[in-house]
Amino acid sequence: MLLTENANPTLAKDQLSDGRRLHYYDKGENIPLAEEGVWQVYRGIAQISQICVSGEEILLGWAQPFTFFGLWLTHVESYQVKALTDLYLRWYSFSEIENTPQLSQVMLTQLARRMRQTEALLAIAGLKRVEERLQQLLALLKQELGQPVSEGTRIGVRLTHQNLANAIGTTRVTVTRLLGDFQRQGLISVDGDRHIILK
Amino acid sequence: MLLTENANPTLAKDQLSDGRRLHYYDKGENIPLAEEGVWQVYRGIAQISQICVSGEEILLGWAQPFTFFGLWLTHVESYQVKALTDLYLRWYSFSEIENTPQLSQVMLTQLARRMRQTEALLAIAGLKRVEERLQQLLALLKQELGQPVSEGTRIGVRLTHQNLANAIGTTRVTVTRLLGDFQRQGLISVDGDRHIILK
Repeated sequence: MLLTENANPTLAKDQLSDGRRLHYYDKGENIPLAEEGVWQVYRGIAQISQICVSGEEILLGWAQPFTFFGLWLTHVESYQVKALTDLYLRWYSFSEIENTPQLSQVMLTQLARRMRQTEALLAIAGLKRVEERLQQLLALLKQELGQPVSEGTRIGVRLTHQNLANAIGTTRVTVTRLLGDFQRQGLISVDGDRHIILK
Repeated sequence: MLLTENANPTLAKDQLSDGRRLHYYDKGENIPLAEEGVWQVYRGIAQISQICVSGEEILLGWAQPFTFFGLWLTHVESYQVKALTDLYLRWYSFSEIENTPQLSQVMLTQLARRMRQTEALLAIAGLKRVEERLQQLLALLKQELGQPVSEGTRIGVRLTHQNLANAIGTTRVTVTRLLGDFQRQGLISVDGDRHIILK
């Protein structure tokens, strides 16, 4: 059933994207945001965050392929979307979404997926113990950005200890210590490319 | 434009709800959740939260009129939706949503609204200072559940200090102290009905 599928590559590929321009952004680039439409990730991963007045970054989520993002979907000030990998995007205007029921359906399914991700991050932020927050965050990353490898599940993007610290409201030093503990306990490993692998 | 409107009462009333059964829940009741569809709030306000193993409650959001909620929209375990006021709901099955493009559009608009609310709560949870978290939470409540009154904006639902503490990861005692400060500073007042009014 359409609504309960996580993604709809066939529809996206055959019916909606014919001849549509792909916008490319380098790893590390900020994505320009505009009011009149939304972006959809075609390939790559973007990081959504808020930059506080203090310069501090609060992580709000990740946009993986098929995910929609844009100013329409946020009220947060100093909203920033950054390419975590090389990133290909497609742009959809509101009038297009309104006039294409199939596009609305795809967007509804994808928005429900992002809703679940954001709510999961909120539930994690509410946990009292930092260790539990980090464990749950890794479990969420496994589910959202995981790729099966022979040793377990590899997080498909390289996240710094500071990225992880921002996501769970702690310091980089604490994340480094806890990840060391998790490695010694055999819960995780890190590959030559510095990607985390969960057992 | 449909997508940028906060709600669509006309469509909901005339085209989608004709003869549809209203389900009533008393204030304080837990709403039963099922896999095959979603609830929409018709009248009243519900509170969405997670109950941790420790019994602790993490607030995940509020559902005001026109909001959709249900298991489809969450991955969180021990998800709980409780009537904060007397509550009237409508039930929509997935097949109905898939076969009614106008319903999908309404749902898309409403889901974007909930997405913004959840993300705003996540941004608040990431703030370092508790006082700032409480101020931002009150601003969000004003925007989401506010009713204009002569003295300012009244939060449309009575929230206990414990409710507010759960929402921002602090203790009831801290919330009581900070609200006292805010009252002395003239930022808020409390009416005879124990609803918070923001100036």
